[in-house]
Amino acid sequence: MDYQRILAEINSEISPSQFNGKVAAYIPELANVPADQFGMHICCLQGGNYAIGAQTTPFSIQSISKVFSLTLALLYEGTALWERVDVEPSGDPFNSLVQLEYENGIPRNPLINAGALVISDILVSHLKDPKKDYLAFIRKIAGNPDIDFNLKVAASEKKWGYRNSALINLMKSFGNIKNDIEEVLDFYFHKCSIEMSCQALAQTFLLYANRGCLLDSHEKILSPTQTKRINAIMQTCGFYDEAGEFSFRVGLPGKSGVGGGIAAIHPGKYSVVVWSPKLNPKGNSSMGMAALELLTTKSGLSIF
Amino acid sequence: MDYQRILAEINSEISPSQFNGKVAAYIPELANVPADQFGMHICCLQGGNYAIGAQTTPFSIQSISKVFSLTLALLYEGTALWERVDVEPSGDPFNSLVQLEYENGIPRNPLINAGALVISDILVSHLKDPKKDYLAFIRKIAGNPDIDFNLKVAASEKKWGYRNSALINLMKSFGNIKNDIEEVLDFYFHKCSIEMSCQALAQTFLLYANRGCLLDSHEKILSPTQTKRINAIMQTCGFYDEAGEFSFRVGLPGKSGVGGGIAAIHPGKYSVVVWSPKLNPKGNSSMGMAALELLTTKSGLSIF
Amino acid sequence: MDYQRILAEINSEISPSQFNGKVAAYIPELANVPADQFGMHICCLQGGNYAIGAQTTPFSIQSISKVFSLTLALLYEGTALWERVDVEPSGDPFNSLVQLEYENGIPRNPLINAGALVISDILVSHLKDPKKDYLAFIRKIAGNPDIDFNLKVAASEKKWGYRNSALINLMKSFGNIKNDIEEVLDFYFHKCSIEMSCQALAQTFLLYANRGCLLDSHEKILSPTQTKRINAIMQTCGFYDEAGEFSFRVGLPGKSGVGGGIAAIHPGKYSVVVWSPKLNPKGNSSMGMAALELLTTKSGLSIF
Amino acid sequence: MDYQRILAEINSEISPSQFNGKVAAYIPELANVPADQFGMHICCLQGGNYAIGAQTTPFSIQSISKVFSLTLALLYEGTALWERVDVEPSGDPFNSLVQLEYENGIPRNPLINAGALVISDILVSHLKDPKKDYLAFIRKIAGNPDIDFNLKVAASEKKWGYRNSALINLMKSFGNIKNDIEEVLDFYFHKCSIEMSCQALAQTFLLYANRGCLLDSHEKILSPTQTKRINAIMQTCGFYDEAGEFSFRVGLPGKSGVGGGIAAIHPGKYSVVVWSPKLNPKGNSSMGMAALELLTTKSGLSIF
Repeated sequence: MDYQRILAEINSEISPSQFNGKVAAYIPELANVPADQFGMHICCLQGGNYAIGAQTTPFSIQSISKVFSLTLALLYEGTALWERVDVEPSGDPFNSLVQLEYENGIPRNPLINAGALVISDILVSHLKDPKKDYLAFIRKIAGNPDIDFNLKVAASEKKWGYRNSALINLMKSFGNIKNDIEEVLDFYFHKCSIEMSCQALAQTFLLYANRGCLLDSHEKILSPTQTKRINAIMQTCGFYDEAGEFSFRVGLPGKSGVGGGIAAIHPGKYSVVVWSPKLNPKGNSSMGMAALELLTTKSGLSIF
Repeated sequence: MDYQRILAEINSEISPSQFNGKVAAYIPELANVPADQFGMHICCLQGGNYAIGAQTTPFSIQSISKVFSLTLALLYEGTALWERVDVEPSGDPFNSLVQLEYENGIPRNPLINAGALVISDILVSHLKDPKKDYLAFIRKIAGNPDIDFNLKVAASEKKWGYRNSALINLMKSFGNIKNDIEEVLDFYFHKCSIEMSCQALAQTFLLYANRGCLLDSHEKILSPTQTKRINAIMQTCGFYDEAGEFSFRVGLPGKSGVGGGIAAIHPGKYSVVVWSPKLNPKGNSSMGMAALELLTTKSGLSIF
Repeated sequence: MDYQRILAEINSEISPSQFNGKVAAYIPELANVPADQFGMHICCLQGGNYAIGAQTTPFSIQSISKVFSLTLALLYEGTALWERVDVEPSGDPFNSLVQLEYENGIPRNPLINAGALVISDILVSHLKDPKKDYLAFIRKIAGNPDIDFNLKVAASEKKWGYRNSALINLMKSFGNIKNDIEEVLDFYFHKCSIEMSCQALAQTFLLYANRGCLLDSHEKILSPTQTKRINAIMQTCGFYDEAGEFSFRVGLPGKSGVGGGIAAIHPGKYSVVVWSPKLNPKGNSSMGMAALELLTTKSGLSIF
Repeated sequence: MDYQRILAEINSEISPSQFNGKVAAYIPELANVPADQFGMHICCLQGGNYAIGAQTTPFSIQSISKVFSLTLALLYEGTALWERVDVEPSGDPFNSLVQLEYENGIPRNPLINAGALVISDILVSHLKDPKKDYLAFIRKIAGNPDIDFNLKVAASEKKWGYRNSALINLMKSFGNIKNDIEEVLDFYFHKCSIEMSCQALAQTFLLYANRGCLLDSHEKILSPTQTKRINAIMQTCGFYDEAGEFSFRVGLPGKSGVGGGIAAIHPGKYSVVVWSPKLNPKGNSSMGMAALELLTTKSGLSIF
């Protein structure tokens, strides 16, 4: 497959200025990101990296980090994890407080905020120095020692994080948060503030395309079954209230973030990351979805 | 792949009596089906049929029929269909009345009852003689002129169908049902009463594994894009509130019914139908899910 | 208390054209009622009738009829009634389908539609010829043999009654409707179509101000305890999602209808009915509420 | 009316041990209160105090304090208050997070927790030294300089107050909390920890029976209209999800607390406080409700 040609075609057919949508505006650090940017990077398991645009520009990965924290929590907690968080799509166009309440503090899945807060609580229980150890894990699977938190973003998230505070307090009232709320929130907001480029993220997501193994060292991080579980969850829960639309249009498991990034994989074939900051009304990158749709259409390959 | 050997292994490793669960009991015709039955049938695109157990026994396909009516409605209505029904998972462990109300009578997807009622309304609008024409379509894509409604089941469904009446009346109050309610319900209940064996159903589902074409005649029923859309919807919405669990354990797009059947496909490879009447608490066949999980585990193939 | 003077003051201080609001428009018979009408009638227990405006014009009493059907159902069913309908305010700005579902088909109170449908079901069970017997009861407590259904209104209500059909089907699925749905709905829609003037309604509501006895004949219809229960329910549940506002502004138990009527009582003192068709956004007569507020303000008397 | 005789009859007819129910157990300070206690105190506007049982024993007034904070907030904020909190019953058997979310952070009324948190926020904005000034206000309207917080109760409430933290964070996310969350919660939990006896509380509630004036000094605290509003809110919202039941059984405006106290008034006649720690499943004192029902039944007087 001539991925470089496909990327060039995508780049010539669509551009950020054509897309509607707004940059996330709930914190100034995200609101100030120039809207009309675009980058895309593909890493193939059989070797080969293909890229276009601002693919080396770091951006705030935000909710994409939920995939990494789920990965690390699975390593520590194993299947016991699923007693504290479910694996079903949330289907809730509104916030998940309602569902949390009816389901006694058990979040629908680990990729919504409530679920990621429980995962953060689990990591705070297991990690000696949670922020430092988490960063070390990301750097390891990314093969990249420069990845770091953006402390200004973390501080801003915390300052405006009332809704996450509401979620975590509600879960604590149901007994599904074990650690101190402030400590878990601090870890959670740092986790979301990590900055990576399309290139670095695609490199990291290879793990999920490669049955849980690092490509270069062949080190096994996850078992094939654990990898399958994570991919299945990305497929059904990775795009807020647009998982069905993404499944159809793109047909790959993936995860988006409000920073405008989308990471996706074709199991056994490649990982791909696209970044463009303007978000559609459901919170996913407008141009990102279009670019990925073009990729699977032009390559004729999706999981369906 | 030696599917016949895999089926034999499944048959020797698990049996219906090992599984908990109850046969659907809301109408006598389903309640009286002997619980400890099991059949399974695989049709490969490259030729080859593999089967085991009661795979020629007809059973009530129930909600599996929703895939066929979605198919036929797409042929008549095209993408205009998506203005009247969404494509997102419902994530609602309860009945969908709540969600319908908040979303102004637009069902979350065509595979939940509310969505299938809208699809039925669309078919009643387009078909000259809805029940007869629908049956003709099923017989055609199944290549089987003997497929028929079970009129006793249809009558029983109607007699106890208060919740479906509530759903359709609510949608009618929002203007999302165009025809007479009684006529749509009558069509809907007939549609659900169709009886097919594992063999016949697997033969019919080949269509979705084969990019929308009938295997024998090469006649194109659906475009590849329409097929992909239907498969994506099955993946995210085909298993009530267990779509995530099914995605992980089995990893194939599919649809289950309260008659105990599950039809699934591996795009480009095969269709498979399993039937065993005992249902787990979420309404899916207990042994059916286990058998499909063994199939994808033993064959080492899933979409993830 | 010089009620006639107070009514004259109200009539000079406010007029229908000053009020915003729309006439109920879901059926043509209500939509065509001229908006700028107003009538008011007070009946004192100590004797004395005071009236102003179009107080002898018949209007559609609609939900005010729920008080009469509750009364008749209590006579037949006694306290067993409260096993099938609760007595708490619904507090739901939306339709009550959600609450019905979470509370297993038990309506919050007998003055919302769901509750009134259960009450209608109870009456259909007890009355030999429900519509005829119900009318006879109203005529008796009203002391007025001319009160009748408006058959065109009943037919229109039925034609557009999808939401009520949804409610009753949902309750039937929970087992809280015992009779045939069509028969109960037919009775319900007839009941709502009764037409009465302010004068006739005020005369009838004297019963609730007079501890359950007819004023002229002294015949006891309800026990004091039954009367107190009905009055308490009117106080907390009689005004859709505006019971709290009405309690404060007017401070009397009462019931409104979408025909623009409001009937209220001051226990031990008087009954009062006001009618003006324009409704505020919560479905209560705009001028009706203002007129009653002036009445209790000017008379210096409310229950608080 | 011979209230002392009525109290003696109540005392001989019912006793705490006859009643089912559990003492509030979410904090140890409440859980350790001996269950089988009972006290009752009536203050008449025309003079005369009548009492029985443990009527001078201080207990935790808990939610009854919401009436006092509403009173003080009305004095500072006037009708602008109603832009931040509604006056309708909540009708929600579950927690109010759901309703808060659908209604954009505006609580249904000032007597549920969410509403009382908004009221606390308003007081924190207006009072120079919130806890001290609030206590001074209570002491003044109570005519009792000894009333005080129970600091152990306040600390325990804070320690287990995750659900209140969830509520206040959610409202803060909607912009309906202006001050620092920790400061508002600290004030709120102190407010709930106030201890008063039946005697002291009844003395204080005379204000609401007396059109807003202190009985002894004739000092006007609230206008008659403000008093009427507060009484109307108590009538429709003062008993969690049992306001309708209380309206019927007792027929007086009032407010209960999980400490087992209930304060009620008969406007123009008397105030009454009853205390007995065992709570019914809806959170109101079992014996308290029975005792008040006997009072209005035996005296033949209620507002209905």
